[in-house]
Amino acid sequence: MLTGDQYLESLRDGRRLFVNGHAVPDVTEEPLLRGGALAAARGYDQHYQPGDDAFGPYFFIPGSVEELRATQERQLHWDFPTISTSNGLLMVLTAASRMRPDFPQYAERALAYFEESKRRDIRIVQTITDAKGNRSLPPAQQDDPDLYVRIVDRGSDGIVIRGAKLHISSAAITHELMVMPTKRMKPGEEDYSVAAAVPVNAPGVRVINASFAPRPDLDPDFFPYSSRHVMTEGFVVFDDVFVPNERVFLAGELEHSATFAHSLGLWERLGSVGSYVRLADTLVGLAQLVAEANGLQRIGHIKDKIAEMITYATLIRAGFEAAMHHATFTPEGWASPDEMFTNAAKYHAAAQFSLMVRHLHDIAGGAVLTAPSMADLRNPETGPDLQKYMRTMKGVDADYRMRLFHTIRDFTADAFGGWKHVTVIQAGGGLYAQKVVVSNHYDMDAAKALALETAGITPDGKVLTSLAGAER
Amino acid sequence: MLTGDQYLESLRDGRRLFVNGHAVPDVTEEPLLRGGALAAARGYDQHYQPGDDAFGPYFFIPGSVEELRATQERQLHWDFPTISTSNGLLMVLTAASRMRPDFPQYAERALAYFEESKRRDIRIVQTITDAKGNRSLPPAQQDDPDLYVRIVDRGSDGIVIRGAKLHISSAAITHELMVMPTKRMKPGEEDYSVAAAVPVNAPGVRVINASFAPRPDLDPDFFPYSSRHVMTEGFVVFDDVFVPNERVFLAGELEHSATFAHSLGLWERLGSVGSYVRLADTLVGLAQLVAEANGLQRIGHIKDKIAEMITYATLIRAGFEAAMHHATFTPEGWASPDEMFTNAAKYHAAAQFSLMVRHLHDIAGGAVLTAPSMADLRNPETGPDLQKYMRTMKGVDADYRMRLFHTIRDFTADAFGGWKHVTVIQAGGGLYAQKVVVSNHYDMDAAKALALETAGITPDGKVLTSLAGAER
Amino acid sequence: MLTGDQYLESLRDGRRLFVNGHAVPDVTEEPLLRGGALAAARGYDQHYQPGDDAFGPYFFIPGSVEELRATQERQLHWDFPTISTSNGLLMVLTAASRMRPDFPQYAERALAYFEESKRRDIRIVQTITDAKGNRSLPPAQQDDPDLYVRIVDRGSDGIVIRGAKLHISSAAITHELMVMPTKRMKPGEEDYSVAAAVPVNAPGVRVINASFAPRPDLDPDFFPYSSRHVMTEGFVVFDDVFVPNERVFLAGELEHSATFAHSLGLWERLGSVGSYVRLADTLVGLAQLVAEANGLQRIGHIKDKIAEMITYATLIRAGFEAAMHHATFTPEGWASPDEMFTNAAKYHAAAQFSLMVRHLHDIAGGAVLTAPSMADLRNPETGPDLQKYMRTMKGVDADYRMRLFHTIRDFTADAFGGWKHVTVIQAGGGLYAQKVVVSNHYDMDAAKALALETAGITPDGKVLTSLAGAER
Amino acid sequence: MLTGDQYLESLRDGRRLFVNGHAVPDVTEEPLLRGGALAAARGYDQHYQPGDDAFGPYFFIPGSVEELRATQERQLHWDFPTISTSNGLLMVLTAASRMRPDFPQYAERALAYFEESKRRDIRIVQTITDAKGNRSLPPAQQDDPDLYVRIVDRGSDGIVIRGAKLHISSAAITHELMVMPTKRMKPGEEDYSVAAAVPVNAPGVRVINASFAPRPDLDPDFFPYSSRHVMTEGFVVFDDVFVPNERVFLAGELEHSATFAHSLGLWERLGSVGSYVRLADTLVGLAQLVAEANGLQRIGHIKDKIAEMITYATLIRAGFEAAMHHATFTPEGWASPDEMFTNAAKYHAAAQFSLMVRHLHDIAGGAVLTAPSMADLRNPETGPDLQKYMRTMKGVDADYRMRLFHTIRDFTADAFGGWKHVTVIQAGGGLYAQKVVVSNHYDMDAAKALALETAGITPDGKVLTSLAGAER
Repeated sequence: MLTGDQYLESLRDGRRLFVNGHAVPDVTEEPLLRGGALAAARGYDQHYQPGDDAFGPYFFIPGSVEELRATQERQLHWDFPTISTSNGLLMVLTAASRMRPDFPQYAERALAYFEESKRRDIRIVQTITDAKGNRSLPPAQQDDPDLYVRIVDRGSDGIVIRGAKLHISSAAITHELMVMPTKRMKPGEEDYSVAAAVPVNAPGVRVINASFAPRPDLDPDFFPYSSRHVMTEGFVVFDDVFVPNERVFLAGELEHSATFAHSLGLWERLGSVGSYVRLADTLVGLAQLVAEANGLQRIGHIKDKIAEMITYATLIRAGFEAAMHHATFTPEGWASPDEMFTNAAKYHAAAQFSLMVRHLHDIAGGAVLTAPSMADLRNPETGPDLQKYMRTMKGVDADYRMRLFHTIRDFTADAFGGWKHVTVIQAGGGLYAQKVVVSNHYDMDAAKALALETAGITPDGKVLTSLAGAER
Repeated sequence: MLTGDQYLESLRDGRRLFVNGHAVPDVTEEPLLRGGALAAARGYDQHYQPGDDAFGPYFFIPGSVEELRATQERQLHWDFPTISTSNGLLMVLTAASRMRPDFPQYAERALAYFEESKRRDIRIVQTITDAKGNRSLPPAQQDDPDLYVRIVDRGSDGIVIRGAKLHISSAAITHELMVMPTKRMKPGEEDYSVAAAVPVNAPGVRVINASFAPRPDLDPDFFPYSSRHVMTEGFVVFDDVFVPNERVFLAGELEHSATFAHSLGLWERLGSVGSYVRLADTLVGLAQLVAEANGLQRIGHIKDKIAEMITYATLIRAGFEAAMHHATFTPEGWASPDEMFTNAAKYHAAAQFSLMVRHLHDIAGGAVLTAPSMADLRNPETGPDLQKYMRTMKGVDADYRMRLFHTIRDFTADAFGGWKHVTVIQAGGGLYAQKVVVSNHYDMDAAKALALETAGITPDGKVLTSLAGAER
Repeated sequence: MLTGDQYLESLRDGRRLFVNGHAVPDVTEEPLLRGGALAAARGYDQHYQPGDDAFGPYFFIPGSVEELRATQERQLHWDFPTISTSNGLLMVLTAASRMRPDFPQYAERALAYFEESKRRDIRIVQTITDAKGNRSLPPAQQDDPDLYVRIVDRGSDGIVIRGAKLHISSAAITHELMVMPTKRMKPGEEDYSVAAAVPVNAPGVRVINASFAPRPDLDPDFFPYSSRHVMTEGFVVFDDVFVPNERVFLAGELEHSATFAHSLGLWERLGSVGSYVRLADTLVGLAQLVAEANGLQRIGHIKDKIAEMITYATLIRAGFEAAMHHATFTPEGWASPDEMFTNAAKYHAAAQFSLMVRHLHDIAGGAVLTAPSMADLRNPETGPDLQKYMRTMKGVDADYRMRLFHTIRDFTADAFGGWKHVTVIQAGGGLYAQKVVVSNHYDMDAAKALALETAGITPDGKVLTSLAGAER
Repeated sequence: MLTGDQYLESLRDGRRLFVNGHAVPDVTEEPLLRGGALAAARGYDQHYQPGDDAFGPYFFIPGSVEELRATQERQLHWDFPTISTSNGLLMVLTAASRMRPDFPQYAERALAYFEESKRRDIRIVQTITDAKGNRSLPPAQQDDPDLYVRIVDRGSDGIVIRGAKLHISSAAITHELMVMPTKRMKPGEEDYSVAAAVPVNAPGVRVINASFAPRPDLDPDFFPYSSRHVMTEGFVVFDDVFVPNERVFLAGELEHSATFAHSLGLWERLGSVGSYVRLADTLVGLAQLVAEANGLQRIGHIKDKIAEMITYATLIRAGFEAAMHHATFTPEGWASPDEMFTNAAKYHAAAQFSLMVRHLHDIAGGAVLTAPSMADLRNPETGPDLQKYMRTMKGVDADYRMRLFHTIRDFTADAFGGWKHVTVIQAGGGLYAQKVVVSNHYDMDAAKALALETAGITPDGKVLTSLAGAER
């Protein structure tokens, strides 16, 4: 296993990173990006155990509902690259299991990749979303054929790929990129049906970054959450990148072009649902704390809004529990969470999130925005004013209450908050996609049978002409 | 055990029933009420087994999650009085378990009552909602002290009660009324803290009935669902009714005035959630069938509405599953479903029901209302017109399509449909009450702890002044 | 002008009506249908003035915003056939104005029809919705070509039409049917592009009826609203009906196939919005009355629900006012209400209606369903019980409170209520159609210009590269 | 009138400003605050006319619906301090009109203040929200009596006030603060019933500022909107500030303690509604532009979401139109917009805003967050990658599309966007307050009369016993 320092050192590997118009020679020194790397380093230190046999709990394949639950619980305490590595490898294994009957060689490569990743203790991110160009046209009909990642050359020892992958969280601070098709490919799109593992520092890879990192001109206390939790989003360019065969998991086989995306959806969405339970609980807690700090916790409409937030949190939790409890198992004995429950919970979490934030803002009031900074509290010219007027009662002083307001702003109404508003909807493919997945896994035949029974129509469509069934 | 005929005979016991302005000498002969009795009789026949040791599966105490799930699954196929009996007795047992430490004699009576009911194979309904009068005043301050059921006399062998209980489904066709306080009583309200079992035919009991029974001037085919599933609602008057001590389970003890209502809520709401899963699935099935019958199943906005209905059904199901999976157990080993999940699912089912019906109506179109009757289809003067114009394509003839429209109207937009709109909200105490229960069982301390951690505030309220935790 | 008796007599004209499987020789004698006829007769009596120059105010063309407002206000007090006549003729005139440049002869016929209708004081309904068959196929590709009304023969003196029109409110009790295409027709569908006026008693016309009429076995007091306001829905068959040329307003001209439907939409939806203002106000009033009758009018969550209902009513009213205030005028000087505001208000009224009814039910409680009948109140055996337990306080006796419950049930949760749930969505074409119309009349170019200005992009698409506009 | 430069000079008047922990000696030089001052200066230049008789159009009292509409239309093009001045003075005049019968001297002072402000061409902000302390206690029962602004001393020439006012937009860059009570005061709270005009540079006034100003380490192109539109929020402390009598408009008279807040609400909310029409249109425009840029504008669910946004914009516009069209007039002939329509529209705008932003984010996709900066586009190492992969089709190049994404992020999902999420709810007093105002101005008696008529109950409460009104 790697220590945090070894990890940070490993990022100085010649990778080509960019942000805000300039190159980034060392990600650990770049103000806009280093926060994520440092958090990941702390994650390494936290898990580190010496010895060749040691490996992180994120390289674990749950084989029962209980193990699945334990893994999901643990994830809540991991940094993002570690979560991504865990989900990404579970995705690879699930895909391998599905591909094994048709392409045993790919299944073997996938398993070997899992073992190698575990041995090297690396961090991996999934790269799925293509540039896509004109959404109303398929990949092969774009005016630029590279708008979806594709194979531009095939040799005996590997393939060469070209294109870009977008929205790649933490790409700049992980070791490998798991490339996969963004959707099912059709005949004529064989070159777009490609899955492969690519090191971030492979020749031809460039990562252009964006981040909601807290602004540098205010002190970290103005950003109680985002100063400690920062995320980097990478725009990853593959400029004719060579991938050796042993890292290629799909190269033209259309029938499995969607296998990786489906498998990823399975794990990424379950992880999302787990994090949304926590997110929803946090919103409830903030609402209750700020209501109490304002002396409003017994007002009817405040209680009602908090009760709505609680119900929201509880329904997501119910979906999360049901998804794990109804897991199925691959022939290898690996758990697969239930997709219908996962996606219904994720949809509810995403669709209602903005309303819940509205409730929180409605409860908290305008000081979410207008509370002066903690620096003003420490300034002797203004500190006494704020001490006097930002406190509300015995036990609720200005320090505490201002921190609550800053947290709510930072978490829901500033740069990080905006990021959350978007990602909660877009992560895992958008609201529409989530509803479609729920529908695809719903037992529509059973529902139709119930409806027919209700209508007094037999299963084979015969309309019962005498409904005098109420008689003896 | 009783056969259906024995059950029907048992209803001719001198009970005093009324409906629509007249007395009902024999409920099995009254057009507005007999439907329910006949359905219950079929339920008896279905379960009947000879022998003194035989008893119905509705007299069963689940002792594990699996048994709980099996019981709930079975309930979906029972008539209402049977469901009510099952839930009512589980409520009595749960209450007994809770009362045992304080009042072992009441616990014993409750257990004895369970055993006697099982032996006699009777049907029982819960009577909880009082007349209530002016809702802004407590029981003892009403201008008529009888507006909540109360003890008006106490003797050595029993008590005498007076008052009325409302919304008592199937009161007219069951054997016993389980009386309990509608809410927690306070000092000075001891006489209102009364729970007891009262036979429907006890002297002083009168039941005035209402029903959504299908109209008699149209043939049953116009009401594909309600002609087979009819419910009677009883307004039950207790005009100085004597209850012998062995049927009294509470008589003035304030500390357990709410125990029965809470215990009932537990079981009634879980049963409701189970039935709402089925209800939601039925709405989905009807929507899909009518979309297919109209050739609309591939239209984007139709599919989207059905996907919303599916997500609704799935979230209720998730709550139902989580409630059972997280059951706790009494010292006796009896299962208690989780209240937080139960109530969140019930709230969601109730709060979104009218929107789901809107989706169904939006998909189905105006013929839900305007489709002529099946009698018109059979009339040689008009049948050919309807055969010609109510069909839509090969495989969708007028018979089938008209039956679908009649079913949707009957189920969601006629008398039964209206009953459903109201009961889905009111059953178990109204939307507000359900949200309150969710809140009461939610782990608010954990949520506040999460919020504090997010804010960088220690559990004891100390605001961390250096948030430079992102640094190494 | 006609008196009510003359009107009733005029309905005995040989028309071929059916309901519930039998022929209806005289609509004024048929229990299921006569209610509407009697209400229309009262409307005739109310408006009757003697003399050849007299005519009803429903034959009036508003020429200013004030006249438009006055007409809409008056409509709220008319019976349905009279409203339908007014809207139908305004539709005909609007269509005539739009067709005049291309087909002056049709415009003249339409004007002549208006004058004749006014002279004869007849009642007219619009017939628009075809049988439609498989919705995924256009008219000419249905397996039965008659699934949309079409011209099957053309002669020198007129045309012959065949097909069916559905959802024709009051068809059985009016004089003429205004036939028009249900949507824009395309090349090859010329025979489906037909508009004409057809007497209800024309040979070949058959009307099969459905109705939510209150059930006959309970007394009218159980249906406080629907016993006085009943609607008949007709399924109208045109079995090779001859229409003379002077009653033909369109016969194959594709470019105006949608003109009638658009013109009808204009007037029908404005009328709907006016009635929804009234409907929303009625729901508010019922909610407030029942809250007061229960002593709940000062409870926070009750007040909040009523405030939501009030806001709903106010927004519909705002749309109604804006639609009239922003009316435009035809070259003839006839008012045309603004379609964008009309449809936005109608959409909001329809989309939120079920939620408002949910609020009302939530406030009113279960007695909406379970309140015994007024006949039980008059029954000496049960009357005292109901007098005692259905009253709540001084000033709120059982009579009054029970009537409120029956009204809420009848109006929102019984047969009429179900009818309302569906028609509020379907009238004027469904939620989807209403949103489309709003979009079509919205000034998207202005919105895009605003967005570009917000983005710092010039109207011709140039991205401004220096946004240092904040500097001096 | 003042020029922009004269205005900027006028801000260097000894005012005591603070931000982010330090004093601000010159607001026009402070990076976090100067943006607003420069925008206001441009506003001065735009309106400047020479001559003693010249005055800005923001000092105008509308006397007709047309003038009211014109004023509101003009406001949309003004900077915030100018809008605030216009609304603040209309508020003062409305309040003066209401107070005149009781306190003519205050009315005269108010009018004189209007004239003086006009002559001096100053900018004014309203200060209303107090620190409030424990919201469950009234002003006089707080443990610190200064938690609401109060009179601490009264002399012959004026009064002395103490306390703080929060959420004061643009306080740092205007000339005067219009102080008024935040709510109706009760007996014993006379000292809290105070209204007065106070110069920002009056001794004892301190303004501590917060702002969402765009971060300084990224170039302005990353913030296409907020780099040009920035708002400052002031926390204003009144540390024993003396106010001469001629600037005091209320000093203890309880009966008019709420007059100012009500009058302000009238004008501020109407102005808000006008700006929300524009805001909603902007969201629609952004959604349509980004859908087109992605090639998604013809996809069903995308069109449906945009149609919902259009309907939202249209309903707000309808409320705005109705509020102006139904204006009433004071005895002086000054227009007063209709409060019911204003507040219903404002409530709808606020309550649905977060859902509309969700739609926009759902349509736009994750690139809202992850699009690299324009600086990356200009960097020769990464520019070609972005040019290639961020374009979508002919006519949609990377420059344009990236600017759209940055605008959507900036406007709805970054610091400014978060500010908008909160202010749209909180401006004018929160969702709850707006619903209450709608309710207060709704004609509940008319609604109850309609409900009674529907129920067949006479206006004096008599239940009609024969509903056979359907008979002749």
